[in-house]
Amino acid sequence: MIKSLFYLCVLALVSGMMFTGYAAEKEGKVKAPKMGKVRHVVAFKFKATASPEDIKKLVDSFADLKNKIPQIVTFETGTNHSPEKLNKGFTHGFLLTFKTEKDRDDYLVHPDHKAFGSSVGPLVDDVFVFDYTITK
Amino acid sequence: MIKSLFYLCVLALVSGMMFTGYAAEKEGKVKAPKMGKVRHVVAFKFKATASPEDIKKLVDSFADLKNKIPQIVTFETGTNHSPEKLNKGFTHGFLLTFKTEKDRDDYLVHPDHKAFGSSVGPLVDDVFVFDYTITK
Repeated sequence: MIKSLFYLCVLALVSGMMFTGYAAEKEGKVKAPKMGKVRHVVAFKFKATASPEDIKKLVDSFADLKNKIPQIVTFETGTNHSPEKLNKGFTHGFLLTFKTEKDRDDYLVHPDHKAFGSSVGPLVDDVFVFDYTITK
Repeated sequence: MIKSLFYLCVLALVSGMMFTGYAAEKEGKVKAPKMGKVRHVVAFKFKATASPEDIKKLVDSFADLKNKIPQIVTFETGTNHSPEKLNKGFTHGFLLTFKTEKDRDDYLVHPDHKAFGSSVGPLVDDVFVFDYTITK
């Protein structure tokens, strides 16, 4: 009986740990930025000739790199809605996170990134890239 | 005895939940981006006349807005180290997160943001701003 209750305690301990992890994941809480990680900010200005279908396909294939290149820790994207009009004509933004500069470097030369890069040229008029290590 | 063991089980369950939360917090894990949140990307290109002390002071006062404006959920900053040379001369990057577009709008008109904004002009040659809602 005591032995059973002991196992029950262990089960409760583990369940508690698992539940909390699951709840935090589900809630998708914004944590304090992790110092030292590398943010890779990219923005595209599309050519007038790029159709909405072309743009969607390109954005989807950029997002798909997350499934192909293990160095990408997070990927996110969205279109500009700043009312400040300081976006220099860039309309589509992307934010990738890497653990280290080395991982960013490995991403840049990864064959899947290279392939994606060569599909960008015909559709995009200009590209902005800004990488920083989170220092504050 | 059984009652004591029952309480022990509850204690174990709660401890497990607390420990996991603490461990996740400490590790500062990168969670999946929270859909619907607004990212406010800012980059500065400083004038040649801006001294390193001027720049540090400006960056610090930007960071300090996090302590003054409750709508800012996260603030981070760093200097560009992309080898791609597509940063258009921008050297200092900032990433602010808001829960909603409304919070971003409230931030823009907040008196402390306005005061910060007017201190930027004399030091900065150009400003890039790109806001997006995380859609993917």
